[in-house]
Amino acid sequence: MRPQIVLFGDSITEQSLRAGGWGVDLANTFSRKADVLIRGYGGYNTKWALFLLHQLFPLMWLLFQDTTKPPVATTIFFGANDAALSGRSSERQHVPIEEYKENLRKIVHHLKECSSTMLIVLITPPPICEEGRNAFAQSLYGENARKLPERTNEVTGQYAKACVETAEELGVRFINLWSKMQETDGWQKKFLSDGLHLTAEGNAVVYQEVTRVFKEAWLSPDEMPLDFPHHSQIDYKNPESAFQQKCL
Amino acid sequence: MRPQIVLFGDSITEQSLRAGGWGVDLANTFSRKADVLIRGYGGYNTKWALFLLHQLFPLMWLLFQDTTKPPVATTIFFGANDAALSGRSSERQHVPIEEYKENLRKIVHHLKECSSTMLIVLITPPPICEEGRNAFAQSLYGENARKLPERTNEVTGQYAKACVETAEELGVRFINLWSKMQETDGWQKKFLSDGLHLTAEGNAVVYQEVTRVFKEAWLSPDEMPLDFPHHSQIDYKNPESAFQQKCL
Repeated sequence: MRPQIVLFGDSITEQSLRAGGWGVDLANTFSRKADVLIRGYGGYNTKWALFLLHQLFPLMWLLFQDTTKPPVATTIFFGANDAALSGRSSERQHVPIEEYKENLRKIVHHLKECSSTMLIVLITPPPICEEGRNAFAQSLYGENARKLPERTNEVTGQYAKACVETAEELGVRFINLWSKMQETDGWQKKFLSDGLHLTAEGNAVVYQEVTRVFKEAWLSPDEMPLDFPHHSQIDYKNPESAFQQKCL
Repeated sequence: MRPQIVLFGDSITEQSLRAGGWGVDLANTFSRKADVLIRGYGGYNTKWALFLLHQLFPLMWLLFQDTTKPPVATTIFFGANDAALSGRSSERQHVPIEEYKENLRKIVHHLKECSSTMLIVLITPPPICEEGRNAFAQSLYGENARKLPERTNEVTGQYAKACVETAEELGVRFINLWSKMQETDGWQKKFLSDGLHLTAEGNAVVYQEVTRVFKEAWLSPDEMPLDFPHHSQIDYKNPESAFQQKCL
């Protein structure tokens, strides 16, 4: 059975399956080596993610180890919605910061229970461009657009910090996307399409960071074998031998 | 467990995972409804594909139906390499046409054995642009390029016909890509990048044909539920209820 890499998160993970998305690029990088499964849920916060946990990552895996296997790696990429401000137009998505940390802990603990060897990577939310969010709201609702921001970069930065702290506390790897993106001049429009979601270049940053952290751990496509022989390795007069070797 | 759609084939399936590929578009269309798994093997013909069959589609599925499930649909997309000419530079990939038909029969029979309800779609090889193949060979090898074509459109057309005949004989659906592409003026460069592999527009044709045939059977993403509630359906004061309903 081919190893699986699961990308678990909100819309930024769900949309990673679109053309130019970081999930697509990752899947292509692991072509014939691992399957990349997208488990992205637009609009979800960590509170709602908890309801999915046992179905997406069933402990049943432990009982049927010959036929099913947990993923070799999982990225956990929530926080952009948790950080929506209380008392503003996206209030329903808001999760208090301590609860956000506790929810991340629950997710990581559950994954560790599924597999002690799973590579777990926490990803912080990307930064917020408030101007971009305003322009987006106005493009949708015109004069009826909300007057006050529903997310700020400052508050999202607190959630990013909380995510990093939780990763360090739990001893799992992390990507501080909030900080990383802001190292580049013009990140507001270069990486964000509507002040929150990712442009093609923003997707490329996530792809580069995820592959970097995977490699720094132990998960490098260059070191993984193809699932079956490359066609050039097959002796056309005696094809069996290439496949027998593979099975040894 | 989310339904799976498997794309089984040669390089034209393997490359479908690249940006703009038909596999990526298909995966995006079935986002949160089914996983699209790419099982494409560049350079492979149906003879070599047979060696993979029991590992990619294990009959073990029948024994562990609670934990593992066969795919709901599989595309079988071989023939471009089988149709390489005997006695020419790609001879090692050549499979005689009657053996090609017999191999397709074996693949289909095996999939039917795995699951009597699996939607099976045979796809013929695309047409060949001999001029494009020559230009490609010269771009690689210059004056040392082979003088005689290794594939011709006429012979590939015979394999396409054999593929259609086999599908009709076995009562499974098919896509005659060889014919379909040639309905469009300028198909040689519009759909083929090197006289054999697909351009972005060529990928779009395969995507459209596969989704059409899937829908004509019964597999339509529009009629499939999301795996979990859309975020707008979640009552933020009582999120449990949305997920309880889902479990009923």
